Amino acid sequence: MRYSPLITDLYELTMLAGYHEQGMHERPAVFDLFFRHNPFKGGYAVFAGLEPALSYLEDLSFSEEELAYLDSLKLFRPSFLDYLAGFQFKGRVIAPGEGTVVFGTEPLVTIEGGLAEAQFVETALLNIINFQTLVATKAARIKQAAGDATVLEFGLRRAQGPDGGLSEARAAYVGGVCSTSNVLAGMRYGIPVRGTHAHSWIMAFPDELTAFRRYADNFPDSCILLIDTYDTLGSGLPNALTVARELRERGHELVGVRIDSGDLAYLSRQVRSAFDAAGFPAVKIVASNELDEFVIESIRSEGGQVDIYGVGTRLATCAGEGGGALGGVYKLVKIDGEAKLKITSDLAKSTLPDRKRVLRAVAPDGSFIQDVIALHDEEVLPGAQVFDPANPIQQKRIPREARLIELRGTVMVNGRRCAPSPTLQSCAELSNSELKRLPEGCLRLVNPHLYKVSISPGVNTLRLKLMSQIQSRYGE
Amino acid sequence: MRYSPLITDLYELTMLAGYHEQGMHERPAVFDLFFRHNPFKGGYAVFAGLEPALSYLEDLSFSEEELAYLDSLKLFRPSFLDYLAGFQFKGRVIAPGEGTVVFGTEPLVTIEGGLAEAQFVETALLNIINFQTLVATKAARIKQAAGDATVLEFGLRRAQGPDGGLSEARAAYVGGVCSTSNVLAGMRYGIPVRGTHAHSWIMAFPDELTAFRRYADNFPDSCILLIDTYDTLGSGLPNALTVARELRERGHELVGVRIDSGDLAYLSRQVRSAFDAAGFPAVKIVASNELDEFVIESIRSEGGQVDIYGVGTRLATCAGEGGGALGGVYKLVKIDGEAKLKITSDLAKSTLPDRKRVLRAVAPDGSFIQDVIALHDEEVLPGAQVFDPANPIQQKRIPREARLIELRGTVMVNGRRCAPSPTLQSCAELSNSELKRLPEGCLRLVNPHLYKVSISPGVNTLRLKLMSQIQSRYGE
Repeated sequence: MRYSPLITDLYELTMLAGYHEQGMHERPAVFDLFFRHNPFKGGYAVFAGLEPALSYLEDLSFSEEELAYLDSLKLFRPSFLDYLAGFQFKGRVIAPGEGTVVFGTEPLVTIEGGLAEAQFVETALLNIINFQTLVATKAARIKQAAGDATVLEFGLRRAQGPDGGLSEARAAYVGGVCSTSNVLAGMRYGIPVRGTHAHSWIMAFPDELTAFRRYADNFPDSCILLIDTYDTLGSGLPNALTVARELRERGHELVGVRIDSGDLAYLSRQVRSAFDAAGFPAVKIVASNELDEFVIESIRSEGGQVDIYGVGTRLATCAGEGGGALGGVYKLVKIDGEAKLKITSDLAKSTLPDRKRVLRAVAPDGSFIQDVIALHDEEVLPGAQVFDPANPIQQKRIPREARLIELRGTVMVNGRRCAPSPTLQSCAELSNSELKRLPEGCLRLVNPHLYKVSISPGVNTLRLKLMSQIQSRYGE
Repeated sequence: MRYSPLITDLYELTMLAGYHEQGMHERPAVFDLFFRHNPFKGGYAVFAGLEPALSYLEDLSFSEEELAYLDSLKLFRPSFLDYLAGFQFKGRVIAPGEGTVVFGTEPLVTIEGGLAEAQFVETALLNIINFQTLVATKAARIKQAAGDATVLEFGLRRAQGPDGGLSEARAAYVGGVCSTSNVLAGMRYGIPVRGTHAHSWIMAFPDELTAFRRYADNFPDSCILLIDTYDTLGSGLPNALTVARELRERGHELVGVRIDSGDLAYLSRQVRSAFDAAGFPAVKIVASNELDEFVIESIRSEGGQVDIYGVGTRLATCAGEGGGALGGVYKLVKIDGEAKLKITSDLAKSTLPDRKRVLRAVAPDGSFIQDVIALHDEEVLPGAQVFDPANPIQQKRIPREARLIELRGTVMVNGRRCAPSPTLQSCAELSNSELKRLPEGCLRLVNPHLYKVSISPGVNTLRLKLMSQIQSRYGE
């Protein structure tokens, strides 16, 4: 699928026109994409969206129809539209792999290229990375809360349009859900698809037992019955037991039942006992209804017997405190060889200047200790002193026994991918294994341990120098 | 743009396979799409998304590739896949016009057709209508809060993927924003596009004044300068005044300045005074930075002098209490001529059975009094007694002086639109005029007056009868 280059804010184009007119459009520039705070007030984020972002960059070009539309706005000179007609992204991209656990402050995607191309891609990259990283993180939180139970994503009906649902299913899979209800996501991304029937199926038949029997006739080996249409324990459960027995007589096994309302902890325990007592210990219990990580945690703490959690609205919309949107931003950090800084009244919100790399200190047992943001060419060794980016007085040492690994790699050069993208399955496996390597407490849903992200001596010194230059120029 | 029919939950397809196998797929059925509670705990919703929904319905068909994917799932019989190969939507659609003010409980979109086609479209219709109605409502709330100021939408970078941003821009325009930053939305829907430059523009030049001058050189007649990069009042404002004077000397006028941080009420007053005192009363002040209806209301109550509010994240994500998602649902209300009811333990959540129409009681001065949901063929006249759907003991009379108008019309017959869709501009005008006709207090952002939605004697009687039948069958 082609992404239109007009998936952008108009100001990218007006800036490009200006740079072009000034002859500045090919000046070498570096931009960092990052977010300031972990979403959901949580202890981490799961990076996602890189593959669609690279597709966007690789395919970037303006069609005649798009140029004609831009011309019709009467904002742009013909020379600029001619320039756009040959416009492509020819830059370099540095990023972590999808599924990598990342944190606020550290550069995620770095774009190096001509000022025009590197500026132009801001909006689309933020659109893709912000949302997919947010959803992958939400999915990871839900998966952590679900423990050994599996999570099915079915948020399509509450997502932001058809493509919102598709992006969401993709990112949720990176973050740890096992399957989706979204058939197009299944076809496009190879995610396992799941689904059975709605209440309307039950209502389309004269009674619940007939509806169950007809469904089992059609899907004798993949039958999951929705048992809460009329009365979960009084009607749905006994009718499902009847069908389970009838299926077994014919050589099949009922796969599961779904409960979509009521007290899910209580109902799932009752349903579990009834199926176990009747000799159906393998029947799975699926629970759904406005679930999120907090509801799942409380169902489990109350002894709920749920095998599969179906999660829709609150995953698709990334609901919850500190959710809704990932506040990813895209900032100029270098131009024409000169490091740049955007200051604000709050030191913590000032950007980190220059080309940088991100190092992760890893303990001998493989667990993650802390991340360090260093200048691109700065040597940082175990034992080095590093600084708190929000408070340069606060210093810390990288443990001497730590290994330092690069969090990111170059994934695109001259506008072309350096290698085929990893499979979505392998991204999901990466996030799963990375989460296990976090320090204890980082996975806690509320008030988690805050993983340390420091800046190197080089970044700290450069940043303070640039700040004082700006302050002396623009006063207090 | 073609919508894939696989933009659906798998259970729609498993149900269809079941109906097809049972020979039930062409039984006449009626489904209602509705939501239960106004979003944002507000007093109303603005209906949107109909036109894309009709496009989806009109184009619905399965490609060979899509059928091959479904075959690969090993869930479906060849006879069912053959049926899908010729599948189209041939049903009838009843809906209000986009921009109509609507309320919880009342049927919005009603689909009449064969059981299979009417069931199948559930997920996609919910996806499209839920999100667009939610955004249009949020936009209307923001526009109401902004008073005479205009609202610019720029949520693309925080929307759910590229298409989420496109749907959002479209629906926000229906709800009352005047323009968008999203260039593709401009091209696709004819929405006016706006935008100037980012902080990175300023940082790409040696100093702020040079950056302002170069921008003004390029866009002498559409120049809006971002004045908060270094120091809004100490640097951005005096530099913008300099450029305003220089532009005037060359026969142009500075269009405006934008403030993207700090105390927007205070800064906008200071900036307004400075431009007024310098002889530039026409320079517009644009404010942005995590705005929503509540922040805008407080800026205005503090005497803020803002002409244009730029709204991004909190519109795109429909943030706020009762926001995030519109809980629209899609329920079977009739099959084979038999009215159907889905009961729940909460009377207010039980559905309203049968084919229905929605009447709006309008006062002689054009203001809206209340809505009444009646059976399709039931005569309801001014003066009639009507019932509270959540409490049938509560009765009310439609005022005798009211006119009763149909809220909805038939927009599609045999799978084809009955007429070309109205322009987006006319939908925006409709929402604007409808909001003015609401009873006082309905527009209040917090604890609004709740507009009355009643059910007719026919709906009330039928619903109570069906409830008692179900209860006698499935027991307590």
